[in-house]
Amino acid sequence: MVNFANENEMFDMMRDKLNAAVISDILDGLGAREQGMRADIRPIYQGAIVVGRAYTVITADIFQVIDDPYGGEIEAVDSLKPNDVMVVCTNRSTHTCFWGELLSTAARARGARGIVIDGYTRDVAQISAMEFPTFATGVSMVDSKGRSIVIDHGCPANCGDVLVNTGDIVFGDIDGVVVIPKALEREVIPLALEKVGKENLLRGELLRGALLRDAYDKYKIL
Amino acid sequence: MVNFANENEMFDMMRDKLNAAVISDILDGLGAREQGMRADIRPIYQGAIVVGRAYTVITADIFQVIDDPYGGEIEAVDSLKPNDVMVVCTNRSTHTCFWGELLSTAARARGARGIVIDGYTRDVAQISAMEFPTFATGVSMVDSKGRSIVIDHGCPANCGDVLVNTGDIVFGDIDGVVVIPKALEREVIPLALEKVGKENLLRGELLRGALLRDAYDKYKIL
Amino acid sequence: MVNFANENEMFDMMRDKLNAAVISDILDGLGAREQGMRADIRPIYQGAIVVGRAYTVITADIFQVIDDPYGGEIEAVDSLKPNDVMVVCTNRSTHTCFWGELLSTAARARGARGIVIDGYTRDVAQISAMEFPTFATGVSMVDSKGRSIVIDHGCPANCGDVLVNTGDIVFGDIDGVVVIPKALEREVIPLALEKVGKENLLRGELLRGALLRDAYDKYKIL
Amino acid sequence: MVNFANENEMFDMMRDKLNAAVISDILDGLGAREQGMRADIRPIYQGAIVVGRAYTVITADIFQVIDDPYGGEIEAVDSLKPNDVMVVCTNRSTHTCFWGELLSTAARARGARGIVIDGYTRDVAQISAMEFPTFATGVSMVDSKGRSIVIDHGCPANCGDVLVNTGDIVFGDIDGVVVIPKALEREVIPLALEKVGKENLLRGELLRGALLRDAYDKYKIL
Amino acid sequence: MVNFANENEMFDMMRDKLNAAVISDILDGLGAREQGMRADIRPIYQGAIVVGRAYTVITADIFQVIDDPYGGEIEAVDSLKPNDVMVVCTNRSTHTCFWGELLSTAARARGARGIVIDGYTRDVAQISAMEFPTFATGVSMVDSKGRSIVIDHGCPANCGDVLVNTGDIVFGDIDGVVVIPKALEREVIPLALEKVGKENLLRGELLRGALLRDAYDKYKIL
Amino acid sequence: MVNFANENEMFDMMRDKLNAAVISDILDGLGAREQGMRADIRPIYQGAIVVGRAYTVITADIFQVIDDPYGGEIEAVDSLKPNDVMVVCTNRSTHTCFWGELLSTAARARGARGIVIDGYTRDVAQISAMEFPTFATGVSMVDSKGRSIVIDHGCPANCGDVLVNTGDIVFGDIDGVVVIPKALEREVIPLALEKVGKENLLRGELLRGALLRDAYDKYKIL
Repeated sequence: MVNFANENEMFDMMRDKLNAAVISDILDGLGAREQGMRADIRPIYQGAIVVGRAYTVITADIFQVIDDPYGGEIEAVDSLKPNDVMVVCTNRSTHTCFWGELLSTAARARGARGIVIDGYTRDVAQISAMEFPTFATGVSMVDSKGRSIVIDHGCPANCGDVLVNTGDIVFGDIDGVVVIPKALEREVIPLALEKVGKENLLRGELLRGALLRDAYDKYKIL
Repeated sequence: MVNFANENEMFDMMRDKLNAAVISDILDGLGAREQGMRADIRPIYQGAIVVGRAYTVITADIFQVIDDPYGGEIEAVDSLKPNDVMVVCTNRSTHTCFWGELLSTAARARGARGIVIDGYTRDVAQISAMEFPTFATGVSMVDSKGRSIVIDHGCPANCGDVLVNTGDIVFGDIDGVVVIPKALEREVIPLALEKVGKENLLRGELLRGALLRDAYDKYKIL
Repeated sequence: MVNFANENEMFDMMRDKLNAAVISDILDGLGAREQGMRADIRPIYQGAIVVGRAYTVITADIFQVIDDPYGGEIEAVDSLKPNDVMVVCTNRSTHTCFWGELLSTAARARGARGIVIDGYTRDVAQISAMEFPTFATGVSMVDSKGRSIVIDHGCPANCGDVLVNTGDIVFGDIDGVVVIPKALEREVIPLALEKVGKENLLRGELLRGALLRDAYDKYKIL
Repeated sequence: MVNFANENEMFDMMRDKLNAAVISDILDGLGAREQGMRADIRPIYQGAIVVGRAYTVITADIFQVIDDPYGGEIEAVDSLKPNDVMVVCTNRSTHTCFWGELLSTAARARGARGIVIDGYTRDVAQISAMEFPTFATGVSMVDSKGRSIVIDHGCPANCGDVLVNTGDIVFGDIDGVVVIPKALEREVIPLALEKVGKENLLRGELLRGALLRDAYDKYKIL
Repeated sequence: MVNFANENEMFDMMRDKLNAAVISDILDGLGAREQGMRADIRPIYQGAIVVGRAYTVITADIFQVIDDPYGGEIEAVDSLKPNDVMVVCTNRSTHTCFWGELLSTAARARGARGIVIDGYTRDVAQISAMEFPTFATGVSMVDSKGRSIVIDHGCPANCGDVLVNTGDIVFGDIDGVVVIPKALEREVIPLALEKVGKENLLRGELLRGALLRDAYDKYKIL
Repeated sequence: MVNFANENEMFDMMRDKLNAAVISDILDGLGAREQGMRADIRPIYQGAIVVGRAYTVITADIFQVIDDPYGGEIEAVDSLKPNDVMVVCTNRSTHTCFWGELLSTAARARGARGIVIDGYTRDVAQISAMEFPTFATGVSMVDSKGRSIVIDHGCPANCGDVLVNTGDIVFGDIDGVVVIPKALEREVIPLALEKVGKENLLRGELLRGALLRDAYDKYKIL
């Protein structure tokens, strides 16, 4: 059993000891086989790892500048709590850009651990320098003002073809972003730690020249 | 008001003090809201920044090796003047590759500041080593000989879904490429410098823990 | 004429002295103009260069976990010989992920020089650290178990829109992956070395300020 | 000059005498060259022609069933006035379906002349039978309940890559949908009627065997 | 409750009284919200309606002509039973074509009611003339020989982004193809018949000029 | 052996007795396995069949109205000879529209048998009414003036991913467009006629209830 003094400690441990691939493998084994986001959601800087509780946002494209143009976005960012990861559904918009450096600064001030956007970010150099883990489908320099609005937050939202609920654990690294449904988290974490251990043994055999057939038959993992 | 001894000095200042996002925001404010190129036009090496006057080129795919196969391309490169940025419309061809190291060397010898291609380049390692700012939609090792020809240069050309005229200012960095129409450049540059200053103040507030709502209401930018 | 004590020495020389672009140019001159793979097959770490003999694999997507779920994949990896480069056709599947660190470790143990996948890999951080040259269309953390199977290997296979036969030479670097058909390899290598030499002369002229027209007319290459 | 007792009569005349191609040509001549919608917005039955005043709607995808799930859609349909054409921006959603037979029946009861959707419809057989001119990017049997909501109507909206304002004239036939900005309508209609006449003369020459060069030089249209 | 002398009678009733949209609505209500296939799977002739029990097939692309090139395809067709609908996963191949007139003739001889292909068919004119309900993503004249093989049948298979099991009911008409999981079929059919009835009442109100708001509030369907 | 008084008679016979699928099968057997165009090139009206000698055209997108804006297009159309089929490479442009009714009228006046465009047409209703066989990837109402120009004709050209030479035979019907290289035409036609005959025998067996396995083993075709 895994116990932690608090969530912060748990997420730090997950960041340091686990990876997206092993979490996905364990979810597969538990029958949750559609938890890996689409492959075009990528970290914007080398070494970015995000782990925390999803706080979801949905945006929609618009085509005029409205009053209080960032109203919903500001409200969503100011709602973030420690250990949150913002998870944003823009429905793959290529017309707007949801995120940037100032929003990253504000989110970090609230304790958020990162953001995953099914859409674009900007200020990639600055966000990378401040190491705020940001995952996105692309980069565009345009602002969201007059291009999109937040229509809901804290609701079920599709991100990268995975249905995410506020409170699910989100884990992203260089191999992509995977979502652990709340109901499975207590099972997934210890099993993932155990698999990491077995992979070390298997790797050792392979480094010593074993055939893959023999090594696999011994450890039954890959 | 901004005054410069010469264009070279102006473009160096822009490269050092501005960025694509702030320029796009100012253009938005002036009603020029479609000046950011499509997000798949990306710098080919980390830290590439391009700024200068557009010199446009249009190419077309062909399917045989013709006499003087590089004729139009050579003519276009040899026409470049100091501070030019070549802006190339290949109509998103995936069949050819417009650019490479030797062309970069020749363009730099004419004083060009970089290139933006709605299409492919090659020789990425060599161009990165010589730090010739190159933005492209992708990379392919194939040559243009027998695959495409230059059909016009110095003409209006679509690049990344923006209509570019020779003489417009082009600015590209890690957040993408934005085009300042010639008629707006005297307005855009001082306003962009001013916004950079305000962003520094807003960032300071956020770093001190202000809610985004309060910080935004004070500075009215994001 | 080029002679080598063994294939290993030849591939090391090719890796050190040649590049994908010059090989593609020579193949063009020999009339083999469709040997460059699609531009979305990219190296997963900076500096990756792969060269060796193709060993082909075809996979197909499935939608259930079968007995011995990695059977075909294990058999294909265990069949690799020194200097082989695995070349994998997944028919651009976005549903599965063919490759990972443990497979890289096993392939290297057999003497393989790298892998080119028209599909996804995972374990990008670990494969990059071990410098096993891996080229892929994308990254996903999901496992192949229950998602795809190997249906044949050592057969003709389409990878990146090039038809590859086991035994062809595959060369991949930052400019992409090009395939030298077995019948042309003795012609291609010396011609490619010769063109590299001429490019050095042409580059020298351009660095001294020659117009591209004059430099091209002198060397007739670009 | 063209005068009509009422708009209904004007739209009937346009439907009977004009076509999308000739309207687009006249708009081109007036410098409005980006008024033709993307080619994947197609009529859902043979012979469908739509002409009327745009009434715009924007929808956004959601991922849960909310209270009064059709509230915005009902409000938008009930707002339609005689001669309106609903113009719907779903941001090319493939997740939902905006339209159907019962909505067509309700829209016709309000006097609407048709609908143009940058998104999907259903009930194609029934809508075709009732001859309610419907243009869409595709067909899906799913309902909008729990999949999308109307977020605004009567606002500027992008449909098929054209920015449409409520009150613009929309004309769609088998060649696609073109938008006449309100400010140009008094110029466009008589010029379009005149061009139709010239095309008849040119066609006559061609049918008598004239070379295209000679016929074009005589009438200066094509 | 609905009772039928046999399955044949039940499928004939479904074909005559139901449609894809109403079945999808009922499935939505039962929480099965991902049962509608992707919108690019279309009937190849006007009026085609398919209903029956899924018999699944998975194919994979290959790149050489093998011995007994149609072996798997023949075996799959010869396995069809009365009231079967072949459901084919080609993983959206654009390289091959699965179906044609002679296969339709053979399938009909076994009693099959139609076919749904996430891939291409050919012989559209002949299949339309014989009215064998065929749904496909496109049309190509190429043969499967040397281009693809059947790798499994009677297994779970993804078709149009829906996971289909042999034995599920498949219903396709002009609005697309929807899959009724075996476990839900006894619930879906009577509820769908009931909704068709209510739609008739609602349509009547709308034809008499009711506002949509009022009509919807009365019947609570749309 | 097949002999014809003239080409016109031969093409009429091919139109009446052959189809794209059988021609593709025969080309496959002769090793010409890449002669079928991409599946998105479709006939614009039901029953369209085109057969004749290719006369190729390449266009390129431009972004300004030039002098004599239709010059190249007029020249290409006026060059057509009896039995020609225009084959147009626009490099899949979605920005322009190459063809229309008046051009169809002019082409028919020169004796042309139809047109195949890797790009858009307009005037679909009128071209359908005059039954000029037109195959295209889509429909748009915009004119080519200021959007594209002809850059070459009578040259090698890629259309639908097939390399077409002027003089090749082009055959298009509802199953798509296939290209018979000039060197193979004398072999292809008699073999295609022969296969049509065998298909009739095989169909007869299947209609009488034979298993596909048995019928195929007898006739060895499918």
